[in-house]
Amino acid sequence: MKDNLNIIEKYIHELELNLSPHNLYAPIHYTLNQGGKRIRPQLCLLSANLFGGDTKQAIYPAIAFELLHNFTLIHDDIMDNAPLRRGKETVYKKWNTNIAILSGDTLFAKAYQCLLNYQGKGICSLLSLLTQTAIGICEGQQLDLDFESEEIVTIEQYISMIRLKTAIMLAACLKAGAILSDATEQEQQLIYDFGIKTGLAFQIQDDLLDVYADVNKFGKSTGGDIVENKKTYMSLKAMNLAQNDDLQQLRYYFSSLDFDREEKFYKVKVIYDKYKIKEHACKLINQYYDEAICCLQQINVQASSKQTLLDFIRQLVNRDY
Amino acid sequence: MKDNLNIIEKYIHELELNLSPHNLYAPIHYTLNQGGKRIRPQLCLLSANLFGGDTKQAIYPAIAFELLHNFTLIHDDIMDNAPLRRGKETVYKKWNTNIAILSGDTLFAKAYQCLLNYQGKGICSLLSLLTQTAIGICEGQQLDLDFESEEIVTIEQYISMIRLKTAIMLAACLKAGAILSDATEQEQQLIYDFGIKTGLAFQIQDDLLDVYADVNKFGKSTGGDIVENKKTYMSLKAMNLAQNDDLQQLRYYFSSLDFDREEKFYKVKVIYDKYKIKEHACKLINQYYDEAICCLQQINVQASSKQTLLDFIRQLVNRDY
Repeated sequence: MKDNLNIIEKYIHELELNLSPHNLYAPIHYTLNQGGKRIRPQLCLLSANLFGGDTKQAIYPAIAFELLHNFTLIHDDIMDNAPLRRGKETVYKKWNTNIAILSGDTLFAKAYQCLLNYQGKGICSLLSLLTQTAIGICEGQQLDLDFESEEIVTIEQYISMIRLKTAIMLAACLKAGAILSDATEQEQQLIYDFGIKTGLAFQIQDDLLDVYADVNKFGKSTGGDIVENKKTYMSLKAMNLAQNDDLQQLRYYFSSLDFDREEKFYKVKVIYDKYKIKEHACKLINQYYDEAICCLQQINVQASSKQTLLDFIRQLVNRDY
Repeated sequence: MKDNLNIIEKYIHELELNLSPHNLYAPIHYTLNQGGKRIRPQLCLLSANLFGGDTKQAIYPAIAFELLHNFTLIHDDIMDNAPLRRGKETVYKKWNTNIAILSGDTLFAKAYQCLLNYQGKGICSLLSLLTQTAIGICEGQQLDLDFESEEIVTIEQYISMIRLKTAIMLAACLKAGAILSDATEQEQQLIYDFGIKTGLAFQIQDDLLDVYADVNKFGKSTGGDIVENKKTYMSLKAMNLAQNDDLQQLRYYFSSLDFDREEKFYKVKVIYDKYKIKEHACKLINQYYDEAICCLQQINVQASSKQTLLDFIRQLVNRDY
């Protein structure tokens, strides 16, 4: 796995980004060198390895998805008014909104440019997959924006949203590895579904950790979602289960941004504890995780290749709360 | 030519855009149905006809470039703070900036989705062309934004900018028609260069008309570029030629947005007249037009097909000032 990461970093390092106009390319270079975890390209390479594909050719879709991912981050940060990303200023803060829009657009095109270097089977399938994924992510982000102003969001709607916003990109990276390896349609679907379930588990874990993480391990402060009234699995489940005064309290705290940060986090967490929201989230994470494993088991490849992928996934969904 | 336009409008009408989430797709539907002139897809179909290609297949790259063009309009309008486009509210004004960013992104992806329907020769060349064009347009827009805060912009730099921002899309549409018709590399280059020269003539004509158009024919009020201190061929040439007091006057008027609109337009126009800026612009338009024709003449196809393309181009660059 370390080898894969080295290959990815080397390729990204060698991307020609010292181009003119400087104001367009400097933000792209900045974004790609912020120490992202490269989860998506690693998934693509792991999947190519799983299905016995040409890992040298796999680098092109792998990096294409990493570029697509970074494009979505640049634009999402504008929409979310996010000042920081990976501990550093976001592009629209460091430069401005116009430059963030335009360098994001360029990075999106660069994802296609990268994929078009691919010389192997299924180029059109890979391009369609990249395109479908991009469209789905936009739909997911729009749903997320819509949810902000909607009073009632069901857990089902929320799952549909995170499926689009988070899970389909992971699934697509895995499927890309299968396509370039000339895997069967059925195998492509199984590894895609594995990615979807893993992605859902991963996002709900993220929601859970925002409330219950060990701050030392988590690497960022907890409670942000609660303080900002974000609709997450945790808040929606709590709103579903809470009764009478507890429900009133949740509605009260989620109605404004003006509360004392610590007090709000504490009061909401007490209600979460009372209704065992953490346990509900754990149960759902485990359910998705088990469904993911079930998909993987149905794929008929060497156990050792599966194990490498599973080890990687266990880092993402570590279930150690 | 009327047939081509009907085919284009029919295809756009049949695009499936009544999708969820509504806030993402409604702005796309709105933008595509604002009565654009469909210059780009028409160029693609005319070029396919010129080179004897399959005009049924040509619709996919033709529409792909129209979608790409409309995506750039949605994002450019945010960056330029433009309240109106084709006489109607721009997307970011009618909805909001976030929705304009996201529906633009989706439309960009839709351009690829459309092109991927193409079943013919050179799909990878067409995809590369679309990608290179998108990147070039972003570079052009960034240069245009950079110019706003730069004191000195040479005419050479300005031409490089409008080449990217305007001309390469027209050239690419024409080249797409050549690629899908399996034209030679040389023919592809000639029709591309024809598009570049036509695009430059078209943009400089636009700059000229903003000052000297017959308002009844032009369809919008004149003087906008001067009032907003926009760097155009007209203003840059005037700054180049004007001497002493005239140069001071130009610098004075172009230093602020606070002048009386009519007075500023009148005073600047007097200086333009004195230095024959209109004549300089006409000369350059004619030069580019002649160079374009020279490219077209070198292409060895039926004179009647050339004539259809030329008739269309004459509508764009009518040289009737």
